[in-house]
Amino acid sequence: MMRVYLDNAATTAMDDRVIEAMIPYMKEHYGNPSSVHSHGREVRSAIERSRKKVAELLNASPSEIFFTSGGTEADNTALVCGIETHGIQHAITSPLEHHAVLHTLEACAKKGKIKLSLVDINEKGEVNLDHLEDLLKNNSKSMVSLMQANNEIGNINDLNLIANISREYDAFFHSDTVQTMGHYVHDLKNLPIDALVAGGHKFHGPKGSGFLYVRKDKKIHPFIYGGAQERNMRGGTENVIGIIGISKALELAYEDMAGHRAHIEGLKKRMIELLQANIPGVVFNGLSGDLDRSLYTVLNVSLPPSEENRGMLLFNLDLSGISASGGSACSSGASVGSHVLRAIHHNPERDSVRFSFSRFNTIAEIEYTVEKLKEFYAVEA
Amino acid sequence: MMRVYLDNAATTAMDDRVIEAMIPYMKEHYGNPSSVHSHGREVRSAIERSRKKVAELLNASPSEIFFTSGGTEADNTALVCGIETHGIQHAITSPLEHHAVLHTLEACAKKGKIKLSLVDINEKGEVNLDHLEDLLKNNSKSMVSLMQANNEIGNINDLNLIANISREYDAFFHSDTVQTMGHYVHDLKNLPIDALVAGGHKFHGPKGSGFLYVRKDKKIHPFIYGGAQERNMRGGTENVIGIIGISKALELAYEDMAGHRAHIEGLKKRMIELLQANIPGVVFNGLSGDLDRSLYTVLNVSLPPSEENRGMLLFNLDLSGISASGGSACSSGASVGSHVLRAIHHNPERDSVRFSFSRFNTIAEIEYTVEKLKEFYAVEA
Repeated sequence: MMRVYLDNAATTAMDDRVIEAMIPYMKEHYGNPSSVHSHGREVRSAIERSRKKVAELLNASPSEIFFTSGGTEADNTALVCGIETHGIQHAITSPLEHHAVLHTLEACAKKGKIKLSLVDINEKGEVNLDHLEDLLKNNSKSMVSLMQANNEIGNINDLNLIANISREYDAFFHSDTVQTMGHYVHDLKNLPIDALVAGGHKFHGPKGSGFLYVRKDKKIHPFIYGGAQERNMRGGTENVIGIIGISKALELAYEDMAGHRAHIEGLKKRMIELLQANIPGVVFNGLSGDLDRSLYTVLNVSLPPSEENRGMLLFNLDLSGISASGGSACSSGASVGSHVLRAIHHNPERDSVRFSFSRFNTIAEIEYTVEKLKEFYAVEA
Repeated sequence: MMRVYLDNAATTAMDDRVIEAMIPYMKEHYGNPSSVHSHGREVRSAIERSRKKVAELLNASPSEIFFTSGGTEADNTALVCGIETHGIQHAITSPLEHHAVLHTLEACAKKGKIKLSLVDINEKGEVNLDHLEDLLKNNSKSMVSLMQANNEIGNINDLNLIANISREYDAFFHSDTVQTMGHYVHDLKNLPIDALVAGGHKFHGPKGSGFLYVRKDKKIHPFIYGGAQERNMRGGTENVIGIIGISKALELAYEDMAGHRAHIEGLKKRMIELLQANIPGVVFNGLSGDLDRSLYTVLNVSLPPSEENRGMLLFNLDLSGISASGGSACSSGASVGSHVLRAIHHNPERDSVRFSFSRFNTIAEIEYTVEKLKEFYAVEA
């Protein structure tokens, strides 16, 4: 049986070159980067090289990059400390955001720190920017948190547009860029955003690694208090191998982003064609069927209602060796279904599956997967 | 030149067996533990085996163990969320605590969440337990946070005694156990503590790994919001290799704790003897010269005033290939000196150096180090 991994929006396999870069920092260079002796200095210098590399790739300054334990901690830091530091009284987000943003802002609202507004979205998951502007007009001291691309349905928001609207109303603008980092170019000197985040494991780096970008003139106070690490912005001995790993992974991502994109877009396009040709009634959730307006890494497929497959689709795919997801991996364990699909009023009689691709996938894997779907949905070959 | 690492309280070299345990989770098992398919399930199962192992070793329940990005995040979680969840209005700590505790509680006080009291200590760094009890008597809804052992001067507090005093006054008791975890036995069913923490890199595990223990009946809300990971207690894709690593390191620590302790105590004892015999005027800060009342891993040495070495001691040791520390590594980069030595009124004319040992150190390294100190302090051999 073929074993096919099509859940790359949940997490990716590490690149061998990332692992190779990390191993010396497991075996030989074990000093604490805060120590001033030689064991410490050699590790400190590796961390600062990593920070410089990340900053260069994103066209930011090294002093704007803070390493974290992942995208979720980075989101929490930007939101909680952005609110506290800048006297934010009102936050705007969307019902389609990742729980790292939604649950964090809901907790802030529950603690009475902010009023929380949800911007309107339509059944395709598109954000109503007029409503965003209304919300900004009617509330001062706002924060806007809108993801660059949705992790489930792949919709891409125009960051530049939202950033400019936010700036017009003097709002702090944060974006959860976990799904786009390493897959799209970020040019932070030319994008008026205040904070964005990355999780290394979404682009072939290690789990437990991430970073937060905070624009120089929007400094925030620490989320985790302790030692003077990360220039007093995050206490705690650094996850050295995580930092080495995420910076190496980002470097590799930028090295041939166009090539990887062409390959992965080819996979997605092929899958769309094969599904449309072979599964009558198939549709694509959100904008994920639109190659120009969705992540090239994500295709969210809504299958026609079927008694045999109802609620069994992911299970049947798994039995066929295919790993895919029903929603965000972060909540799939809880089997509560996808809050994103609910928010766009997805027909609950249809099963949906998110296929997400990486540069390690092949056309053969796509063909095998569609063959299996044809079998499940009893379409004659 | 010999290269001697005597800064094991700052961080330790990873055990090869820990690295070996981690590598398959870098190379082969890359699934997201929240994913329900086979790629995810195999990783989920490894995490839960790790949690069970940690719980068994500490005589706790797996549901009381939460993996974090390190000791500092675990401390922040216990303190910030302990205060919020349990309606704490007053916290008691000591001026000798690690900054992960001190700075966190200071930030809570600054935000108006709590009143903060510092318990009296004497010039040996001993906590005045009568004063602790007075503070508890005179304030309701208190939290007590006192470390099991000081990372700089090695003083050991009697956790059982402090836990019982705290319980008597219905106070939430947290202890920063970063320096003792993996070096001493913790029997949590028989110690009435509410929360304690670990950082994997202090006992030959990876940096960026840690865990928090919270007693079942003292549940707290999350510090990092997001997905349903860690049973809704910590959002964010798990640092899988960190979790595998810290649990393996703890397993190895418990496998031959008595043997390692005997070896390391031998090193410390030998160093004390050699220093006393060879450096006139040497004294030991805090209780670190007392083998029964201090960490067997830490010796904090106060050298006699010397024009030649003033402020140069660590530098000279480093030039001789010896890595040691002036205080906590976490603040040594900031070169502000040790808040612990200041708090015990250490004579600023004397240079102090913390030597900290691990099972990888040898008697030869100790002898070499004392030889060098003799040279610096111009003691005729």
